[in-house]
Amino acid sequence: MFTYSNLLVFTQQIFEKIGCSPAHAAQAAQALLSADLRGVDSHGVARLSGYIRLWKAGRINPKPEIKILHETPSTATLDGDAGLGLIIATEAMQIAIRKADQVGTGWVAVSNSNHFGIAAHHAMQALDHGMIGIAMTNASPLVAPTFSSERLLGTNPMCYAIPALHEPPFVADFATTTAANGKLEILQRKGSESPVGWIQDAEGETTTDSFALKKGGALLPLGGDREHGSHKGYSLGAVVDILSAVLSGAGYSAWAPPFVSFLPLPPDPVGKGLGHFIGAMRVDAFRDKTEFLENMDKWIRRFRQAKPVAGVEKVLIPGDPERESSAERLEKGWEIVPSVVEDLRDLAKEMEIDFEEK
Amino acid sequence: MFTYSNLLVFTQQIFEKIGCSPAHAAQAAQALLSADLRGVDSHGVARLSGYIRLWKAGRINPKPEIKILHETPSTATLDGDAGLGLIIATEAMQIAIRKADQVGTGWVAVSNSNHFGIAAHHAMQALDHGMIGIAMTNASPLVAPTFSSERLLGTNPMCYAIPALHEPPFVADFATTTAANGKLEILQRKGSESPVGWIQDAEGETTTDSFALKKGGALLPLGGDREHGSHKGYSLGAVVDILSAVLSGAGYSAWAPPFVSFLPLPPDPVGKGLGHFIGAMRVDAFRDKTEFLENMDKWIRRFRQAKPVAGVEKVLIPGDPERESSAERLEKGWEIVPSVVEDLRDLAKEMEIDFEEK
Repeated sequence: MFTYSNLLVFTQQIFEKIGCSPAHAAQAAQALLSADLRGVDSHGVARLSGYIRLWKAGRINPKPEIKILHETPSTATLDGDAGLGLIIATEAMQIAIRKADQVGTGWVAVSNSNHFGIAAHHAMQALDHGMIGIAMTNASPLVAPTFSSERLLGTNPMCYAIPALHEPPFVADFATTTAANGKLEILQRKGSESPVGWIQDAEGETTTDSFALKKGGALLPLGGDREHGSHKGYSLGAVVDILSAVLSGAGYSAWAPPFVSFLPLPPDPVGKGLGHFIGAMRVDAFRDKTEFLENMDKWIRRFRQAKPVAGVEKVLIPGDPERESSAERLEKGWEIVPSVVEDLRDLAKEMEIDFEEK
Repeated sequence: MFTYSNLLVFTQQIFEKIGCSPAHAAQAAQALLSADLRGVDSHGVARLSGYIRLWKAGRINPKPEIKILHETPSTATLDGDAGLGLIIATEAMQIAIRKADQVGTGWVAVSNSNHFGIAAHHAMQALDHGMIGIAMTNASPLVAPTFSSERLLGTNPMCYAIPALHEPPFVADFATTTAANGKLEILQRKGSESPVGWIQDAEGETTTDSFALKKGGALLPLGGDREHGSHKGYSLGAVVDILSAVLSGAGYSAWAPPFVSFLPLPPDPVGKGLGHFIGAMRVDAFRDKTEFLENMDKWIRRFRQAKPVAGVEKVLIPGDPERESSAERLEKGWEIVPSVVEDLRDLAKEMEIDFEEK
């Protein structure tokens, strides 16, 4: 069993060890661990050694000088100087919030970054300011557009975080694919087949082989196939790619850099690193704040009171399961799968940092 | 066979007949007919008599005084004074473009409106200004959130229109459901079953009965079921509802007014009319305009050149089929299904306006 505070200290020490400032290391550790807290195990400490391998490969700069390349009263474009996306996206949201304070909304396109953890962590920073937060990022190409046998998009997640008054906030954070890669990995570990509509093989044929992705196949856009609206999931993933990377000057589509350090960077780059798109909208730039928050409570309660289908306890509000996971894991700690624990032990040993369960 | 210019004059005359100013009638006719041109027959002249019935029921004000209720440098909230959404959304986009000109981006939440036609028509207005256009709207409740047997959302479409240099623009316009209601109507006319994942029955069970919606069933969010990511489609539809209606002060969720005039307005309204959310982002608020447009060309060409799956000619860019339809229909005209022609003839007779095929 591991506790949040224990893992936070450990993760922060690792980031300091590779040269991050204490403030940046703390920011990065909080961002990374917010995934574990929310139950998104695939994006939390399980990825820590992956970030470190990218640093070893010279692809992560632990001391980035984040530069504003361009700005207007409501927008900015950042060059993340190849730093950790965990840090750069945090900085981008602070700029978006500042601009929203001044002119109602703030929108920041980010280039030359790396993976930023979970979108929800960044979008949710806006909530404390009475703002709606938006965060999206492009990612390594694993997804085939509708009708394509080639992978041209990442799982390209987007998050909208919207405050309420007495009710907890609405937080929708999702990959624009039918299933996240993390869910496929769970099936692979169990040796189970995948549901139809999650993946295709190297020729672009539907398959239930959970290992198809490792054999040149691809994840499918939300919808799964044309008849079930995969062109909509493809459109969403494309919008995330364009706003995050074409608008910012990052590597887009098949040119997005891979997360794993053993894959080479794409030749003939079209931009720098990964890209993000971060937004903040002041609620009272549109409507009296209390009126808005009261109506959000009413919206949320109407959905909670909906008659559920047979066999299901209740209708959920986006963010409910993750908030419950956070509360439970903060209080009681949580188990980490053995292979990840082993990976963290190896990392601790190499970096000469204590690592204990507690 | 009907031609664009013929139908445009006819539609404009109808709108003038109910009391719209010539300028408003022209705007509304262009917005409505853009659906027919783009091949979205369900949202074009087929709906003209529906709008007129709403006017007869006193739910559409032909002479709206559109008011700005609230604004900041990058935002505005409008009260559409119960006018045609076709007109009010056009006005909202003009305001968004003006604000984007001044501070980089512009965002307009609209309340007290009616159906605005297709989202693409409004979003695409931004393209000529070198801007990215965004348009979304809530709609009559026909969709059940994941796990709900009740209808709490509309088909809530969103559109992103993004300019390119030599390539035609990227225009993704889609309902946040697996299938649009219009596609279901086509199956009903043929007496065919629906694919699994499109609809559920009144108890919330999956069904292939194309008439289930008329028996208390519901359309399903994009994804279809939980295993295929319907919680993501539900999240998207919810975001559209909240930005369009909770943020603007319109009727949201089950309180969104029905499009058909024979259904009563919901009791205990929580807001006024339908809501829209319209945005414009200046491309050069983020990056040199030519650089952006050249990279969009490169993005589009990479997708066009992707190796297609067997049996398919090529990978499409969002907006391709609709643009091809527009070009063909503008040049050659198009057929309208007999029931709609009859409906338009009745309307013409009642309004004492000439209506001829040509």
